[in-house]
Amino acid sequence: MTKNSSNTMALAPHTSNRRETVCIFGTGDFGRALGHKMIQSGYPVVYGSRSTQISNLIPKDAEVLGHAEAAQKAAIIIIAIQRQHYNFLTPLAEVLHGKVLVDISNNLKLNQYPESNAEYLAQLLPGSRVVKAFNTVSAWALQSGTLDASRQVFVCGDDVEAKQMVMNIVRALGLTPLDKGSLLAAQEIENYPLQLFPMWRFPIFLSFGLAAFFFIYCVVLDIVYTYIYENNNFSFFIAITIPNRVCPVMALVLLALVYLPGIFAAIIQLYRGTKYRRFPDWLDKWMLCRKQLGLIALAFASLHVVFTLVTPMRAFARWRTNNRIISQVLNNETETLDHTNAWLSDSYLSLGILGFFLFVLLGITSLPSVSNNVNWREFRFVQSKLGYLALILCTAHTLVYGGDWFLNPSAYKWYLPNIYILSLIVPCAVLVVKFVLIFPCIDKPLTQIRQGWERNPKHSE
Amino acid sequence: MTKNSSNTMALAPHTSNRRETVCIFGTGDFGRALGHKMIQSGYPVVYGSRSTQISNLIPKDAEVLGHAEAAQKAAIIIIAIQRQHYNFLTPLAEVLHGKVLVDISNNLKLNQYPESNAEYLAQLLPGSRVVKAFNTVSAWALQSGTLDASRQVFVCGDDVEAKQMVMNIVRALGLTPLDKGSLLAAQEIENYPLQLFPMWRFPIFLSFGLAAFFFIYCVVLDIVYTYIYENNNFSFFIAITIPNRVCPVMALVLLALVYLPGIFAAIIQLYRGTKYRRFPDWLDKWMLCRKQLGLIALAFASLHVVFTLVTPMRAFARWRTNNRIISQVLNNETETLDHTNAWLSDSYLSLGILGFFLFVLLGITSLPSVSNNVNWREFRFVQSKLGYLALILCTAHTLVYGGDWFLNPSAYKWYLPNIYILSLIVPCAVLVVKFVLIFPCIDKPLTQIRQGWERNPKHSE
Amino acid sequence: MTKNSSNTMALAPHTSNRRETVCIFGTGDFGRALGHKMIQSGYPVVYGSRSTQISNLIPKDAEVLGHAEAAQKAAIIIIAIQRQHYNFLTPLAEVLHGKVLVDISNNLKLNQYPESNAEYLAQLLPGSRVVKAFNTVSAWALQSGTLDASRQVFVCGDDVEAKQMVMNIVRALGLTPLDKGSLLAAQEIENYPLQLFPMWRFPIFLSFGLAAFFFIYCVVLDIVYTYIYENNNFSFFIAITIPNRVCPVMALVLLALVYLPGIFAAIIQLYRGTKYRRFPDWLDKWMLCRKQLGLIALAFASLHVVFTLVTPMRAFARWRTNNRIISQVLNNETETLDHTNAWLSDSYLSLGILGFFLFVLLGITSLPSVSNNVNWREFRFVQSKLGYLALILCTAHTLVYGGDWFLNPSAYKWYLPNIYILSLIVPCAVLVVKFVLIFPCIDKPLTQIRQGWERNPKHSE
Repeated sequence: MTKNSSNTMALAPHTSNRRETVCIFGTGDFGRALGHKMIQSGYPVVYGSRSTQISNLIPKDAEVLGHAEAAQKAAIIIIAIQRQHYNFLTPLAEVLHGKVLVDISNNLKLNQYPESNAEYLAQLLPGSRVVKAFNTVSAWALQSGTLDASRQVFVCGDDVEAKQMVMNIVRALGLTPLDKGSLLAAQEIENYPLQLFPMWRFPIFLSFGLAAFFFIYCVVLDIVYTYIYENNNFSFFIAITIPNRVCPVMALVLLALVYLPGIFAAIIQLYRGTKYRRFPDWLDKWMLCRKQLGLIALAFASLHVVFTLVTPMRAFARWRTNNRIISQVLNNETETLDHTNAWLSDSYLSLGILGFFLFVLLGITSLPSVSNNVNWREFRFVQSKLGYLALILCTAHTLVYGGDWFLNPSAYKWYLPNIYILSLIVPCAVLVVKFVLIFPCIDKPLTQIRQGWERNPKHSE
Repeated sequence: MTKNSSNTMALAPHTSNRRETVCIFGTGDFGRALGHKMIQSGYPVVYGSRSTQISNLIPKDAEVLGHAEAAQKAAIIIIAIQRQHYNFLTPLAEVLHGKVLVDISNNLKLNQYPESNAEYLAQLLPGSRVVKAFNTVSAWALQSGTLDASRQVFVCGDDVEAKQMVMNIVRALGLTPLDKGSLLAAQEIENYPLQLFPMWRFPIFLSFGLAAFFFIYCVVLDIVYTYIYENNNFSFFIAITIPNRVCPVMALVLLALVYLPGIFAAIIQLYRGTKYRRFPDWLDKWMLCRKQLGLIALAFASLHVVFTLVTPMRAFARWRTNNRIISQVLNNETETLDHTNAWLSDSYLSLGILGFFLFVLLGITSLPSVSNNVNWREFRFVQSKLGYLALILCTAHTLVYGGDWFLNPSAYKWYLPNIYILSLIVPCAVLVVKFVLIFPCIDKPLTQIRQGWERNPKHSE
Repeated sequence: MTKNSSNTMALAPHTSNRRETVCIFGTGDFGRALGHKMIQSGYPVVYGSRSTQISNLIPKDAEVLGHAEAAQKAAIIIIAIQRQHYNFLTPLAEVLHGKVLVDISNNLKLNQYPESNAEYLAQLLPGSRVVKAFNTVSAWALQSGTLDASRQVFVCGDDVEAKQMVMNIVRALGLTPLDKGSLLAAQEIENYPLQLFPMWRFPIFLSFGLAAFFFIYCVVLDIVYTYIYENNNFSFFIAITIPNRVCPVMALVLLALVYLPGIFAAIIQLYRGTKYRRFPDWLDKWMLCRKQLGLIALAFASLHVVFTLVTPMRAFARWRTNNRIISQVLNNETETLDHTNAWLSDSYLSLGILGFFLFVLLGITSLPSVSNNVNWREFRFVQSKLGYLALILCTAHTLVYGGDWFLNPSAYKWYLPNIYILSLIVPCAVLVVKFVLIFPCIDKPLTQIRQGWERNPKHSE
């Protein structure tokens, strides 16, 4: 408390720098937290409250008055009360006329009401200048000073001057205002803090499902089968060996799924002969979560890299290597270098490294600050050209690694194909169709369609 | 289509929230795409067109009128026609008087015309308020909703109010406006979408050239020489062994090339005794692409790290290790730990790891969002102090690795030095000269010169 | 020079695009650098100076006049003189009335004067419109064009129009203006360029101290002890073995220290029964540097990963492996796979990899551009849920790795515990207390307190 009062003391009433009084309606948690912070930042604060007695929770240096008296003392009034009590403000319409009302409310559900709270407030009090702000800031974060998360405060409102006044307060509190335009944006701003990675939900569920399937598939083929037919207990494969089979498969399949909707879109456009009809809904949604799919694929690829690199540290790998050497020695064998083997081993490692390198590059360019600094042409170049190159390299990496397993009958335990073979279906299909699509005889009409040309310009929608 | 119409239906004509009508001149691809998007965002759209009959391509809910009638219906007119047809607008000057004209045009070449399209439009219609916007957005991206690339819309214009109106539309479409100031910025904004990594071009060509040279150099010395004189076919070295020689060399040389221009600049300033004369052009350009050179060097260093870490997975490495052990066993040898060797091996690995760690730190601080959050003093500290430390560590890593090869005559096949030796020339030169430059007797006058002091203040420029 | 003059030539005096004349008071280094840059960007520049003769340092195309004459020629005057000479401006008050004065000054120390330079200037010349800008830009960077660091120019001022004029100049110079609100922000802006990672200072000192302690502890136990009692010289352990013991310990301890203050805060709030009293100062400061502690922990974890992965490349490791195999062969042993060992080895590797993966995810979300794109709920989810999961995984990794060493008396050389045991104290304590805190009977009142509830609402502060 001492700190606060010294802060406010430092601003003697006659300095020209004195900040203007701010009024806060409502003494709930957020109203108090915001008041505390404002007093710390040098604003005189006056609370408007039904009862002027609950004063010990309220910041010490703040005044508490009735609503009307409090409102008269300030040009800016922060409405820290819930939407369902907004109608009690209507009798105050005259006092609030011309004042800047800051709506900081949030809802409990997405799109809970037909109109946003701020627009509802503006309808109730048409003479006031309503600004939406502060709803994305947490009271707890404001008070504890731990605003690592997001210092951004979305501000919107129809009155430019009122918005400027609120944005100045935001800045004075050490936060960053972000002008979102007119009050129409309030709905979006009110929905914002309720979201929990909405764009990530489908990609994450999809990858969990796929990963679980591949995991069980591997457990059955590599542990259960071996246990039944070879009587070997390899249950410890669950820790590293099987994850290191599932991760590359997931990375490759998800990367292919990033480029598959583009292929579908091209085919649909070629078939329809126009780009002026909406894609089916599922394709639209799929296209919108390609970035997320790609980043999850990158996560699996990174895990695959680390899982592979720790191989020499594994007790199992050391045991296998030692045993091989010992048996060679005991049989008095000397090995000669198998050149084909050396070529294959080095090629698939090298292809994998280069593919992963391009993959990481793609990941870096999808960081918001990087992608904001490239233009559309550059972004397309990286995401399309380099992305396909990464897909080609990773598919080749898997093909070379798989090698002659495709033909080897021992790869088909219980008549089930190895997951390497499963993992190649989607990427190979994408690459083959893409290869067909870049043939000039197909690429040319597609480019024309994307530039607005129509095959049957007379068709009615 | 249903979705669009329901959206526009939701906004009954009497709501106060109704967005203002926007007029679009031109029914080309971008005009239609923008119109679609605007209708989706709740704007009534009216097209101005010579013929009012090509209506089936145009969004269903949009009106199509003649130019003059359409312009009268809206305060904002989007000029979606090409620059060469701008002069047909002059007869409409009276109708367009006071209106906000949004120039969205792009050119086909950088600096195609002496003045920007937006400035040309402003000259043609001096009574209108011209704003440049939307030219960096792709029609295809706008329509498919896949605006991952860049949601930023650069806006510039001389009239502040007009600019605000356009920026509100930009926000309503879910994009982020970025105010670039007065209409003078239009030239830059029009050039922006035509660029394809202009700052990266020279560094990438340089590194490809250098890498190709080093690659061939290695192929000759390691594969061709071995094949001719030792009759060993090591062609599979192309996949990993040789890339893993070229990558570290490239990383070290490029990192040194990042610090070389600073050395040249210091020498030139010391020689001239003033900082008030421009550096030669090549030095200026070199200094401007240091960041790019450094990031390419980091890419090579990362590849070197991964190529090195996969070594134990290589068939060749396994064969070599096994053979060594087997021959030891067969000769009944037991090895004792060579302490010098253990020291050397651990030191060069450790130096490399620390150097790479600092290198990655430098890379992270050059991310736009990170470098925007550090001040000049902090940036200089990281890029200069930590950068030189990384260069010292990486050079030491190479020196310790090279070890006594410098003196070993077998390192000079065909009298050519090993590339490790070549790679050390530039970094060692940079470090030696830098070491001289930080001597107080040289550092003091240099600091004075950089603070504005001149040795011969009377010289005329 | 040619380039500059051609630039200014291109703007013939009658074009409407002609930029307005800018006046610069003071011909010191920064004044000249700024003048150069402005002339390059098309602004006519006039210098105000006591003597009009020192003209050869001044950009060729600039005019040099007395202060009063120069000021009359421009609406914007850049005050490139030091604060202690500001009082010479008072006689010019009349000429400067209504003009925009740009204060670009910096101080030598943080908070050197009671009020900021810009506020002092505004007090001296109450009729002028003072704007603070450009102080964060370096003269050297401005001149050499190497503005990689920060293109951001913080601007603040009480007059909105004056601020706009200055921000337009900032944009025209190719820099990015950042509106920081009213002139009250000038103090903060003036302090900004003097800072050198203020938030990082304590975390870095703490980690250096801890790392030095653990390093010496390891040197004593692993090198000195071995040398004295086993007569083995393992001094080369200093390069990799010991760093690879210190790094994981530091990573784990620092990660636990990130979550410890949250535990303390919860206990204090539960004990006090309110959130409306400030935490002790040390706790406040600790909470504010959690992000930095976490990033340093991540750096140590990354080093640990690389140090571990190079193990097979070490001469010492190769010698140890070879010796083991050779001795097995010579003793005619064949090894059978130890399943417990395989399980343990694979589990701790797998736990470590997953923990590190989550750790890297946390690091990526703390990049400014990423954390600005998540809302409070998402940030809490990542930093709290995923963060604790990473801590649990890393602690389990260490526990499994340590294995039965805890009970093994040979782990207690000189009665000192191994550092693995030391490293587990803090993380285990954090996890145990956290586990208690999420019990519903404790979590419920804590949540209520954090939502504003008070146990003893009548207590006076």
